[in-house]
Amino acid sequence: MALVAEAATIGRVIPVWRSKLLKSLAQNKRLANSRYVQLATVRPDNRPANRTVVYRGFLSDEDDSLTFVTDSRSRKVGEVAANPAAEVAWYFPETREQYRISGNLTIVDAGSTDSAMQAARKRVWHNMSDPGRQQFAWPHPGLPRHLEDPKAWDGPAPGPNDPVLDTFCLVVLHVDEVEQLKLKSNERFLYRRQAAAAGAGGQAEEATAQGAVTWVEEPINP
Amino acid sequence: MALVAEAATIGRVIPVWRSKLLKSLAQNKRLANSRYVQLATVRPDNRPANRTVVYRGFLSDEDDSLTFVTDSRSRKVGEVAANPAAEVAWYFPETREQYRISGNLTIVDAGSTDSAMQAARKRVWHNMSDPGRQQFAWPHPGLPRHLEDPKAWDGPAPGPNDPVLDTFCLVVLHVDEVEQLKLKSNERFLYRRQAAAAGAGGQAEEATAQGAVTWVEEPINP
Repeated sequence: MALVAEAATIGRVIPVWRSKLLKSLAQNKRLANSRYVQLATVRPDNRPANRTVVYRGFLSDEDDSLTFVTDSRSRKVGEVAANPAAEVAWYFPETREQYRISGNLTIVDAGSTDSAMQAARKRVWHNMSDPGRQQFAWPHPGLPRHLEDPKAWDGPAPGPNDPVLDTFCLVVLHVDEVEQLKLKSNERFLYRRQAAAAGAGGQAEEATAQGAVTWVEEPINP
Repeated sequence: MALVAEAATIGRVIPVWRSKLLKSLAQNKRLANSRYVQLATVRPDNRPANRTVVYRGFLSDEDDSLTFVTDSRSRKVGEVAANPAAEVAWYFPETREQYRISGNLTIVDAGSTDSAMQAARKRVWHNMSDPGRQQFAWPHPGLPRHLEDPKAWDGPAPGPNDPVLDTFCLVVLHVDEVEQLKLKSNERFLYRRQAAAAGAGGQAEEATAQGAVTWVEEPINP
């Protein structure tokens, strides 16, 4: 186990796993589905849920959380409220790598009072495609189809500068652990947030807020 | 909600979702990674685990369970013993479809006394590639890499007719529910095993053994 060498930027260090992930995204960018990841959560009945979602970028240059979007009426919103734990499995076909990224989820809905998170929600809405935005005006996802008016699917798509629909939620994954598996070279690396000294949870929170988080890298057997 | 029209074969009906999945596999077969799926389970601490695994076929022509393989030393073996619930997310890039497949897992290890399952374990071992078989002779997966002799990775690969290594496990997903989402046409279908009448669990088991399982199809909103 070794402390990770980190590239310094203005004001903070970039975790090695973030740099690696950005490199993988660049190397696989000819494939649209290299931005599709599988997000697993746990339902209230202790069974897993797993679905494909589109990666919408890191939360910011300063925050290594991953972002996705969801509909406020989808089943996962209630499930995440009961258990925020999540693990993303992300396979890159071109480079033959897998990342497993785990942490806790926050759902940012229309009622969220966190101004930074609301700003992120608006920014991601703005950056969506028109068909992507249109889905949030569709009928309730998952309900029986025959109850719906066929014309319910044909409404105009909201534009990038139209008001954010109330059904539009930002999903933020606060990352605690990342595992990278490289199938070509049979290498496997584990990255873990450095634990705060002497079990001081409060100190760890503070370190995060100050951007002083340390990550530990460990090469493990594939 | 409507009973599914099913194609009759010798001795039993094929569930519509199985026929659809086989068609999707055929339509996507130029992509090796169209056989890679993400398998989610729940850890004993109620956090989800999610990893990419290779689909190894249906258990048999008569049994609609999906098969995968794992190493007896991997963390998921203990996790599945504590909670067998699983959900597979399977994205097909060529046809732009997602299947979510949920049910319970059985791990068939070297000590399993079920002769049909042992036969399936041997068959899947036989059908693996040489590099695929070789991994089961590697050092303990997930342990720190620096503890290992570099030469530990270079042993000869067992051949298809060599004895099955004890570390080799068959993973069987007994399917209870399937959801298909077609992104091109914005269609979504839910397939559920027909519940046994009046809560008679024993009867449902019997129906399964006789191949008389009924699946219910429901079109739902995307």
